[in-house]
Amino acid sequence: MSESNNDFVVTPWEVKGKVDYDKLIIQFGTQKINEELKQRIKSIINDELHVMLRRNVFFSHRDLDLVLNDYQSGKGFFLYTGRGPSLGMHIGHLIPFIFTKWLQEKFKVNVYIEITDDEKFLRNQEYTLEQTRQWSYENILDIIAVGFDPDRTFIFQDTEYIRNMYPIVIKIAKKLNFSEVKATFGLELSSNIGTIFFPALQIAPTMFEKRRCLIPAAIDQDPYWRLQRDIAESLGYYKAAQIHSKFLPPLTGPEGKMSSSDPNSAIYLTDDKKTVAWKIMKYAFSGGQPTVELHRKYGGNPDVDVAFQWLYFYFEPDDKRIKEIEEEYRSGKLLTGELKQILIDKLNEFLEVHRQKREEAKELVHVFKYDGKLAQQMWEKIHE
Amino acid sequence: MSESNNDFVVTPWEVKGKVDYDKLIIQFGTQKINEELKQRIKSIINDELHVMLRRNVFFSHRDLDLVLNDYQSGKGFFLYTGRGPSLGMHIGHLIPFIFTKWLQEKFKVNVYIEITDDEKFLRNQEYTLEQTRQWSYENILDIIAVGFDPDRTFIFQDTEYIRNMYPIVIKIAKKLNFSEVKATFGLELSSNIGTIFFPALQIAPTMFEKRRCLIPAAIDQDPYWRLQRDIAESLGYYKAAQIHSKFLPPLTGPEGKMSSSDPNSAIYLTDDKKTVAWKIMKYAFSGGQPTVELHRKYGGNPDVDVAFQWLYFYFEPDDKRIKEIEEEYRSGKLLTGELKQILIDKLNEFLEVHRQKREEAKELVHVFKYDGKLAQQMWEKIHE
Repeated sequence: MSESNNDFVVTPWEVKGKVDYDKLIIQFGTQKINEELKQRIKSIINDELHVMLRRNVFFSHRDLDLVLNDYQSGKGFFLYTGRGPSLGMHIGHLIPFIFTKWLQEKFKVNVYIEITDDEKFLRNQEYTLEQTRQWSYENILDIIAVGFDPDRTFIFQDTEYIRNMYPIVIKIAKKLNFSEVKATFGLELSSNIGTIFFPALQIAPTMFEKRRCLIPAAIDQDPYWRLQRDIAESLGYYKAAQIHSKFLPPLTGPEGKMSSSDPNSAIYLTDDKKTVAWKIMKYAFSGGQPTVELHRKYGGNPDVDVAFQWLYFYFEPDDKRIKEIEEEYRSGKLLTGELKQILIDKLNEFLEVHRQKREEAKELVHVFKYDGKLAQQMWEKIHE
Repeated sequence: MSESNNDFVVTPWEVKGKVDYDKLIIQFGTQKINEELKQRIKSIINDELHVMLRRNVFFSHRDLDLVLNDYQSGKGFFLYTGRGPSLGMHIGHLIPFIFTKWLQEKFKVNVYIEITDDEKFLRNQEYTLEQTRQWSYENILDIIAVGFDPDRTFIFQDTEYIRNMYPIVIKIAKKLNFSEVKATFGLELSSNIGTIFFPALQIAPTMFEKRRCLIPAAIDQDPYWRLQRDIAESLGYYKAAQIHSKFLPPLTGPEGKMSSSDPNSAIYLTDDKKTVAWKIMKYAFSGGQPTVELHRKYGGNPDVDVAFQWLYFYFEPDDKRIKEIEEEYRSGKLLTGELKQILIDKLNEFLEVHRQKREEAKELVHVFKYDGKLAQQMWEKIHE
């Protein structure tokens, strides 16, 4: 991806500018999730599509059609996603988990969630392994709170599960040379040898079953999976399929993606009601006019308004209601402050439920990591 | 090491020419094991020195004096050596093990033996992991046959023990970048990412205890340990000490080292009596004269004669007897065929005992890997 013929950049380590998702599909060589595919999913699950599919938050894929074929033929498939543990998770981080959980519910399939406590430590000079493992625990609580099926979900930390993965990890590592991972992962000659090896650990879970693996993730992660697709079949496994999401815009505006390093660009899952209200009111980039008079006259622009975009992504799942909000904002009937208040209420409602579930999750960590039906099977298995 | 000012080359992946060990000490910046140090060891153990020390087969070191200080002050130390598993082991492969076993016996210390089934697989395109694990089992039998103390020795395969090592492995990996390992391990941009990561696994066992680690190994392995010495203290561990051996010359002549890829250059631990006799008679490079008459007149040269060198390295540990053989050969009294026959008898005697012990070792694999006193402790330990 070069910047020369675009005003945006999307790589696994940087998202800059206003992303043109149609162009990205062409650049990355992925497939658009078109109406036909959506209708097919709808008819298979015999239910409404998830709001993120209806509204094209998940908008692109590789081999999703083949995944559906395998599902319908009885071969089945499995889901894989993961997280590089961080001090706090923000609402953008939940998107792949919320969507993965929905897919699990509808297709009744296994979900594997890799917590890369090793990579987070290796990639950041200032972090200790003790920190990234503590964050792993905290993040796992947030992930469990999303509501995965405890018998069909295995959450594992690399530093704990490595022995079970190591044979397949080194088989993968043997297929990848430094030049290849350098280009894909943005590594240098001065990169430490742990970060150079790590791609093999990220690819390994795509080979946990001899079925097709579907990975829900933001589209910037796609290059990682291209490496997997280059080598999977030579190891006797399937090329991993992906379903790609857009980036939830940061509070600060419609460009780039939410960043953990700028706390004012994001709402954290631990932000209390007051903080949420204050951050949205103060920082949320507005598509409104500078004065109430001008706003009433010319109306707001929901396409760049972050409060509206967040409601649209998933905080207002009611399609009728979101249409009303959009029209009222565009017409000038709904003021920026009012729109922000709608989001604040929705967010605080969401976060209150999340915090409750997060508390309950403390009792479930052992189930998802060690004792659940799938977890138990996984600890007995050495992946070759 | 450049070839320009030498007629020999010693790197971890190549030994070429007639090695000048005094020059090598200067090149590598190691210390000679001088008479004073030998006398010190002798007085500490209150026993004869091992033949390989008496005859300077182990001739060079780093920090051996500090190891002895730690031993005498009660801090103690531990031994670490290892093996890249191969289809068969030859008599040269036993040298570090025989010497390590002697050190263990005299100092009553723990020995850790790493079997790098992962690296052997990663480094060789044609090998499967199934093969390198099978060879690991076979090689472990040969190692156990040397006679280690089952309560003070832990033999482990990387693919099995990785979970216990992984935290310290990634802490090491974070300290080493590609440029550094590239130079030391002879890696390229086209090297697979497993081989690039591997040095961290080779270094990890030097940090199994918070004491000084002494590594007996051939001197070509020294560059690996220089990396360890660069980073050990920053991780709160000791710089590893080494005691370096010379190369047992290949059958084919006094240059280079024995190679597994040329079966006629080596005697394998599985070679039967006839094979041993035939290989020595046919291939052992001789320091004798072309005819009996000339030999009687001018005498042989034991310094280049491989049969003599092997007897000197360890197959004739009696100092009086080896001196006799040397003098008789030099004088022409002892013919090449007779010298070879002495070696054949000694070798076959040695191999017969080894084969017997190797059979008995089958019952002990579980002890050294899992059930022995040290092994049990090691499986309960996560190395951070």
